[in-house]
Amino acid sequence: MSKKNEMYRALLGKPSCTLAANIFDPLSARIAQMIGYDLLVLSGSVGKAANLAAPDVVISTLPDVQDHIRRVTRVTDIPIMVDAEDGFGNAVNVWRCVRELEAAGVSGIEIEDNVVPREFGVQNPGLHPIATQVGKLKAALAARTDPTTVIIARTAAWGIDREHAVERMKAYAATGAEAFMLTGVKSKADIEASHQAVPNIPITILAPPLGVKDDAKFCSDNNVKIIMLGNPTYLVAVKSIHDTLKFLRDGGDADALKGKQADRELAREVIRTDAFEKWQQEYLK
Amino acid sequence: MSKKNEMYRALLGKPSCTLAANIFDPLSARIAQMIGYDLLVLSGSVGKAANLAAPDVVISTLPDVQDHIRRVTRVTDIPIMVDAEDGFGNAVNVWRCVRELEAAGVSGIEIEDNVVPREFGVQNPGLHPIATQVGKLKAALAARTDPTTVIIARTAAWGIDREHAVERMKAYAATGAEAFMLTGVKSKADIEASHQAVPNIPITILAPPLGVKDDAKFCSDNNVKIIMLGNPTYLVAVKSIHDTLKFLRDGGDADALKGKQADRELAREVIRTDAFEKWQQEYLK
Amino acid sequence: MSKKNEMYRALLGKPSCTLAANIFDPLSARIAQMIGYDLLVLSGSVGKAANLAAPDVVISTLPDVQDHIRRVTRVTDIPIMVDAEDGFGNAVNVWRCVRELEAAGVSGIEIEDNVVPREFGVQNPGLHPIATQVGKLKAALAARTDPTTVIIARTAAWGIDREHAVERMKAYAATGAEAFMLTGVKSKADIEASHQAVPNIPITILAPPLGVKDDAKFCSDNNVKIIMLGNPTYLVAVKSIHDTLKFLRDGGDADALKGKQADRELAREVIRTDAFEKWQQEYLK
Amino acid sequence: MSKKNEMYRALLGKPSCTLAANIFDPLSARIAQMIGYDLLVLSGSVGKAANLAAPDVVISTLPDVQDHIRRVTRVTDIPIMVDAEDGFGNAVNVWRCVRELEAAGVSGIEIEDNVVPREFGVQNPGLHPIATQVGKLKAALAARTDPTTVIIARTAAWGIDREHAVERMKAYAATGAEAFMLTGVKSKADIEASHQAVPNIPITILAPPLGVKDDAKFCSDNNVKIIMLGNPTYLVAVKSIHDTLKFLRDGGDADALKGKQADRELAREVIRTDAFEKWQQEYLK
Repeated sequence: MSKKNEMYRALLGKPSCTLAANIFDPLSARIAQMIGYDLLVLSGSVGKAANLAAPDVVISTLPDVQDHIRRVTRVTDIPIMVDAEDGFGNAVNVWRCVRELEAAGVSGIEIEDNVVPREFGVQNPGLHPIATQVGKLKAALAARTDPTTVIIARTAAWGIDREHAVERMKAYAATGAEAFMLTGVKSKADIEASHQAVPNIPITILAPPLGVKDDAKFCSDNNVKIIMLGNPTYLVAVKSIHDTLKFLRDGGDADALKGKQADRELAREVIRTDAFEKWQQEYLK
Repeated sequence: MSKKNEMYRALLGKPSCTLAANIFDPLSARIAQMIGYDLLVLSGSVGKAANLAAPDVVISTLPDVQDHIRRVTRVTDIPIMVDAEDGFGNAVNVWRCVRELEAAGVSGIEIEDNVVPREFGVQNPGLHPIATQVGKLKAALAARTDPTTVIIARTAAWGIDREHAVERMKAYAATGAEAFMLTGVKSKADIEASHQAVPNIPITILAPPLGVKDDAKFCSDNNVKIIMLGNPTYLVAVKSIHDTLKFLRDGGDADALKGKQADRELAREVIRTDAFEKWQQEYLK
Repeated sequence: MSKKNEMYRALLGKPSCTLAANIFDPLSARIAQMIGYDLLVLSGSVGKAANLAAPDVVISTLPDVQDHIRRVTRVTDIPIMVDAEDGFGNAVNVWRCVRELEAAGVSGIEIEDNVVPREFGVQNPGLHPIATQVGKLKAALAARTDPTTVIIARTAAWGIDREHAVERMKAYAATGAEAFMLTGVKSKADIEASHQAVPNIPITILAPPLGVKDDAKFCSDNNVKIIMLGNPTYLVAVKSIHDTLKFLRDGGDADALKGKQADRELAREVIRTDAFEKWQQEYLK
Repeated sequence: MSKKNEMYRALLGKPSCTLAANIFDPLSARIAQMIGYDLLVLSGSVGKAANLAAPDVVISTLPDVQDHIRRVTRVTDIPIMVDAEDGFGNAVNVWRCVRELEAAGVSGIEIEDNVVPREFGVQNPGLHPIATQVGKLKAALAARTDPTTVIIARTAAWGIDREHAVERMKAYAATGAEAFMLTGVKSKADIEASHQAVPNIPITILAPPLGVKDDAKFCSDNNVKIIMLGNPTYLVAVKSIHDTLKFLRDGGDADALKGKQADRELAREVIRTDAFEKWQQEYLK
């Protein structure tokens, strides 16, 4: 078991809930690790935004995501879980998806059940038939070269088709998937129903309803192990880059930006200067 | 001649001086174009920092830089000039360097004369012998598949070995290099001496001395065509990513960040949502 | 117009028909150029076979093909036309497909109308609706950054749905596509009907019926400009690699293989030794 | 420990000597595995030849090699050992080299002691100072994220500087390197001297002197565990590709090539058709 998979499985197994860092590139990932986060998450939307300047109507290809992740895992030592869209195609594509993401160093792979990319002009994306999705999850589990890689059943059913959400979760759980990722849950009741549907499987939630994040007992009672807050950090970065480039373009002096910049110490930590200098001292003869 | 090379050569040819956007990834490049910059510049240090979380003591490989640039040129329509280090090796490597960077969509390629990476424990990096550097510049010029690609002689001599700076510039100019990139110039006098050394060749300057940027007449008189301010934008982004991730880690609510985030309109513009939706409408049948 | 696009358009414009080299990797492409071929073709099936060891039931992703091509264009100076499958998705994906393949150095991009990958257990793959395919071809034409890139309408209709083959060809021609690629044509009559349907558009044919290749007049009369023979070279390479590795595994001596190996001169030409040595002599100081 | 590392270490540990398959691309690697080889080897020269059409005077970059290997490990289940040149730079570059090659799935990494690329016009390449090479090997060992990755001390000393070959081997062994790779050994006496210098470390040999390959007792007595025969398979493939393309270019019929081509069964096995069809049947719903 790789060190990262071990760390990831520990998070899924421990009683308390972990706040993951939603990152969008190697830089934000490196900084998240410095701050002390225990888990990185790369979602599809900011992956496309930061890497391709494209909206979610375009599906990234597997190699886009894989390269993006490899750039992240290369500079970090904590585990990453990844939005692997719909597995980038059918159950045969899922096979390759799992193999490539494992090779890129991913510890948790989410396979989602909604149709991507969202069809044009359609309000709600559809969900793939349960049998199709079950086939994909089984394929994902069988495709692993490392049995400690966690396959995560991601469902959008709570936001799109609540009627059958519980039915879907039970069917997905029966494949052997080892965790769930929920999007679009509207209430604590949704979460409780989810937990009752799959009582032995850890749940991870993207953008949970208000109050969940800070309710440790609720999370513990309902097997909620990982929470993601969406991508405010990406949006803050976009604004800060925009405002700075605009300020300079409008004739501003770089010196006036000092207070807004990373100081020398932070800048050196990001690029691991001390470690590299130590390495030079030790091995460069 | 590609549209981007045409735009780039127009900047080198026009009387006034252009402020380039120092970018560090596809996202900052896309935003720079939105704001109205006419030129992107990727320097080696932030390339390594943002992409590899590594300091300048490690030299990136050519494919690192080439992939980084390709991710930038894929999402932008304005020209980019690039710090190609020492050409990533000797004159044979320079050949490949130019071919690959052309293929990545670069309009201006800087080949620098100081030894990289800086040797450990050495105060000032050395400069390659003039003959070696002249060989590399000739190789770079001969390697182009597109004769409109601009090979830029980059010299660190003003900061390291001012004695011979003028001699170097004259020797480099004799190769046919079509622009100069100066680093480490300390005064307007350095720039004037540079211009007198190579009166017919446009000069670009990284981090010019105080007062140069806003002195249009001085720039025009001395053939200074492009100015780069270094990488404050990168440092601002680092701090904003750091502070946001820390705020959330410390229990802060994402909602409290609203004012610091890109608003909906800015966020949509970054990812070209309107263009993609128009494309869908027109071609998706 | 790039030199390669110019060469490619010359082949489509001249009276006589050109035999293209079906290649499968950089090595076979380099050798084809040495022999004197004027055009390289990379088809989907051997692309997947040589690069992914996978059959045509799995669709490659765009980056797989793009990287494969880039490795080919890096080592060759003659144009390449490429099987771009169905554009790797819908009309929005076609946009990206064209941009990426242009960047990889492709001169001719085939967008095909049959459903890929072939569905499991289905005898004949279906064809996309005409309107969908017309939308894709228009998207491909609009997506070009270089107007000299040739968009090729590829149709499998003659092999799958001959009834409507002529109707399809007329509809595709109306988009502005500048060449046709036919697969599955069974007879000279099919080709004549094709030419009559689109009299002003050059036709390229994969694996034409017996007798076409050597009938210069027929080709000229019917605007057949490029012929591809499929992938015998790949299959010969597979057998020779297999037999050699097996011979050695079974205890054979490498010396016994001398007569089957490229001699020194051929080996040096493949890797361009003379050119590199000349480059060293000229620029390495 | 990954399955591949386990297999590789078993080969280094068992009494008898293994003949490795020198491969040059994913296709030859896939075929080698089919035939029953237990180990793949990618040497630098054919890596450059097959991938870059370039001679050994140009050093590949780390990402070239890493991508090449990743394409190989993606389609094979047996271990691979790799010529990592001089670690692609100094001891800091060695750190990155090891990390990237581990991520690409390599089980054994050779770090060589001769100066690469060979300097122009120089008869014999030099060897790096012993202290430098010792620093690099220590760096390589310390850089591993997986302690089961094998760092192989590769020395060209027997072919360049036999005087000090034994001294070098002892110094390298003291770093903790777990295997040796010898090039340029001229006689059984060289091998015996090597074994006496590092009696507890398994030895691998590229192109051993006549008679070694088939002398099981000699190999066993001298701890010779892996033998590589150089790259005849590459040279046979070059000739077969050349001759086939030439035959077709000269007007030959593809049909006449049938006997030289892989038959249907072999072709299907290369692309794993049965496995993919089984996968479709099982998971595609």
